[in-house]
Amino acid sequence: MHKYALHIMYDGSNYSGWQIQPHSLSIQQLVQDAVRTLVKEDVNVVGSGRTDAGVHALDQVAHFRCKEPQDIHYLCKALNGILPKEIRVSSVEAVDIHFHAQRSAKSKEYHYHLALGAIVSPFERQYTWHVPYKIDLTLLKEAAALFIGTHDFRSFANSAHTGAAAKNSVRTIYRLDVVPKDNNVTLIFHGNGFLYKMVRNIVGMLINVASGKKSLSDILETLEAKDRRKAPMSAPPQGLFLVKVEY
Amino acid sequence: MHKYALHIMYDGSNYSGWQIQPHSLSIQQLVQDAVRTLVKEDVNVVGSGRTDAGVHALDQVAHFRCKEPQDIHYLCKALNGILPKEIRVSSVEAVDIHFHAQRSAKSKEYHYHLALGAIVSPFERQYTWHVPYKIDLTLLKEAAALFIGTHDFRSFANSAHTGAAAKNSVRTIYRLDVVPKDNNVTLIFHGNGFLYKMVRNIVGMLINVASGKKSLSDILETLEAKDRRKAPMSAPPQGLFLVKVEY
Repeated sequence: MHKYALHIMYDGSNYSGWQIQPHSLSIQQLVQDAVRTLVKEDVNVVGSGRTDAGVHALDQVAHFRCKEPQDIHYLCKALNGILPKEIRVSSVEAVDIHFHAQRSAKSKEYHYHLALGAIVSPFERQYTWHVPYKIDLTLLKEAAALFIGTHDFRSFANSAHTGAAAKNSVRTIYRLDVVPKDNNVTLIFHGNGFLYKMVRNIVGMLINVASGKKSLSDILETLEAKDRRKAPMSAPPQGLFLVKVEY
Repeated sequence: MHKYALHIMYDGSNYSGWQIQPHSLSIQQLVQDAVRTLVKEDVNVVGSGRTDAGVHALDQVAHFRCKEPQDIHYLCKALNGILPKEIRVSSVEAVDIHFHAQRSAKSKEYHYHLALGAIVSPFERQYTWHVPYKIDLTLLKEAAALFIGTHDFRSFANSAHTGAAAKNSVRTIYRLDVVPKDNNVTLIFHGNGFLYKMVRNIVGMLINVASGKKSLSDILETLEAKDRRKAPMSAPPQGLFLVKVEY
């Protein structure tokens, strides 16, 4: 048996997300179909984790196992020949047979882009969340700091599809940076793992606090409550990028 | 009578270009329809020049004339409420009644983006021309320098729709910079005016020279020939941005 890891970039705007689902066009499905066509085996392509409809990736990692050894350079080029231009395989590497794209992941980095001006550039409309009301950047940084560290993030996880997360919802956020640039702000999340919709739920809370709808103490109370119903609505998907998976 | 200038950004990917044409969705049509709805007069919106299908603008300028004075801040906001998110009006200004978006223009700046790596990022696929073969950057700069100055650009103009250009095809290019960044190169054109498809035709020639298919002396011969049939094919539209119009 041989095992390979794929590094994949995608613009998620027109897809139903990473994960294979019936009656919808997922990135996992397209990548898996392309790999099967080239490898000529019924491989399963397993990603580091799902990304929702409209969420993007600069470096999603996925693995597959097959009987025959592959020419990684040819495979990379041929996959890009088959896949739509919204999905690019930046590299293919041979990995240890015990490597698992999801279970071997040690940490992940996500970026969330906010557009704060009155007008969103047409070139950023699919890659930012437009927040046209007044945001206090100092308050945004203070709010972000409250999420850093090890917490039970149950209040910030959607549970619908995550039996696993329900068992253990403690995660560690190493870094949550607020990086302003012109009229935009990027929120940089780095942590040992993220529950389902956790980044978008935290961003929703951060914007509620930075715009004065919630207070800093509401964050602490919501974390404490361990109840999703206590947290505000999710931020929309198009501002979110999976940037890096570390093993 | 009152006259107003609009500053407009657009992602041209899904449109038939700036100019109103029967049976196709143009940016001029959408902007004009939106202005007519708000101003409640049958105004004509006149742009600084056409951009082709797939070409983008960071700052296209257009004017219209109307009987009633307008609240420019309200108009800007309301136009953005009506227009699709691919088209944004960044500002509206009251201008002199003699101002003409096309005829008063003194110079224009266009940028053309080339993606030179093996793989184009999904986020740049609609905003670059992918040139995957070997490009000699020194040769590209030498080739670009030959276009700077005042020349008869007839060989680099498509004549199909340009009766006017056929009469006088002498233009001055003040600046044609080659700006590399990572695996991309931006070509910055600044000139007193550009004939129909002139930028894309010059880019086509530049890439032919920089990839060794044509020589530097072919540029001089093509300029001298004053015959469109002597020049290579146009570069594709999606790499081209109208960046600035100066008055």
